[in-house]
Amino acid sequence: MASTAEICESLLTSPPQSQSTIAYNYLVPNIKGLESLVKIMDATGVSADSPGSETKPATTTEVSLFAAATESFSKANTNCTIAESLERIKPIVAVAKTKNIRVRGYVSVALGCPYEGPEVSPSKVADITATLLEMGADEVSVADTTGMGTAPRTMELLQALKAAGIANTDLALHFHDTYGQALVNTIVGLEHGVRIFDSSVGGLGGCPYSKGATGNVSTEDLVHTIHSLGMHTGVSLEEMSRIGSWISEELGRVNDSRAGKATLGRLAE
Amino acid sequence: MASTAEICESLLTSPPQSQSTIAYNYLVPNIKGLESLVKIMDATGVSADSPGSETKPATTTEVSLFAAATESFSKANTNCTIAESLERIKPIVAVAKTKNIRVRGYVSVALGCPYEGPEVSPSKVADITATLLEMGADEVSVADTTGMGTAPRTMELLQALKAAGIANTDLALHFHDTYGQALVNTIVGLEHGVRIFDSSVGGLGGCPYSKGATGNVSTEDLVHTIHSLGMHTGVSLEEMSRIGSWISEELGRVNDSRAGKATLGRLAE
Repeated sequence: MASTAEICESLLTSPPQSQSTIAYNYLVPNIKGLESLVKIMDATGVSADSPGSETKPATTTEVSLFAAATESFSKANTNCTIAESLERIKPIVAVAKTKNIRVRGYVSVALGCPYEGPEVSPSKVADITATLLEMGADEVSVADTTGMGTAPRTMELLQALKAAGIANTDLALHFHDTYGQALVNTIVGLEHGVRIFDSSVGGLGGCPYSKGATGNVSTEDLVHTIHSLGMHTGVSLEEMSRIGSWISEELGRVNDSRAGKATLGRLAE
Repeated sequence: MASTAEICESLLTSPPQSQSTIAYNYLVPNIKGLESLVKIMDATGVSADSPGSETKPATTTEVSLFAAATESFSKANTNCTIAESLERIKPIVAVAKTKNIRVRGYVSVALGCPYEGPEVSPSKVADITATLLEMGADEVSVADTTGMGTAPRTMELLQALKAAGIANTDLALHFHDTYGQALVNTIVGLEHGVRIFDSSVGGLGGCPYSKGATGNVSTEDLVHTIHSLGMHTGVSLEEMSRIGSWISEELGRVNDSRAGKATLGRLAE
């Protein structure tokens, strides 16, 4: 397998063909990670926002920075307190901004922590989210990493975020379907006015710190649910279902999308 | 394996120990099926409503009668029109009533038909439901056999049932999780005031007429969702999760309950 730098350089200089703008997201664990990315961008002469051309699609370069909503998870995941992790994130955001790189913050375990249980303080999540936005993050994804989130607690959290002055347009929601609540919680988010939701095709992924955990909610289930409410995504459920089936087979894992499997079953009739 | 008559006789005369009343439900495809049941009840001297004793729990005997919401499904499933199937059901209900047997009607494919698609007429479902109740059914389970139901169409159906004068207390809802919408639709039902929901432990079952279909929504997911809303079921999610895992293993199938697997994962930590 190629090194991260090689993959990064290849994506920056030869992005895959696409009809619309693609945002390439790089997980940046620390300032060194960002410095490596910037070095490659400088060496290849590719800017963070490439307008594209006839042969190349427009691309946006984005970095992901992670904070956690509980001290126990922060300690286990990043070996520092929440305050320390925010101090580490601050200069990374500042450097990214100078290079016009989009910044996406994450608040992990916002609706349940494997160490501290489901009762995570909504105002603590709101504080961390606000801090990330004030530092210059373009968007913060509030993540139910363990899937412990419920409809009433999702609503409570969204109300706390609103009370802290955070706009829905600066928010993304990231649900795991571990307890089967991801779509229920998505609808709570939609009703509250959030319009950005994370998902993964075929439900790939998962959380290594949460036993028995399934992965992120599948893109197919999310798209089917949003369409069922009469809203638009611009995503073809049929094509996404085919991709989910294909990648699951490639990876030798079970396709974890109900809507994906049902859509393919219907198409096969 | 024992014959249906032997199983039926065994359950009537030696019901398993339980702390609370158990309703034994028998699927009765036609009048002969009911006559066989009545014959066994007469021979064993067991009445439909057994008050129980110190050594035996109270039991209720119940029969299930199926009608479909579309002509195509009725033809494929029971080889007759909807009107003909209701004519066949009528005398079965009448005989059951004379023996004090509880009658549960079902309206299959109420939110989507494998032959006619998702657009099933809500007023047609309401008509069939009302007819079954007028015949003397104690309860009608309106079933999303294919899992095609969505939140807006579930709400539309419940409004049609209400407009037809059907009380929530006479209704049950039966969702399949084929497209991942069972819990979303359950919440729509709960908000509308329905309090009876069908489910199966570990998500056992399925619909042979709907390709790619998963089974009924799992009891564990349903119980977790209802508890998450602060409502009570009287069911222990932990015990139900253990049962779901056990029976899935016994049957050599995948445990299809997300909340069940996650609960067991949490308990194992």
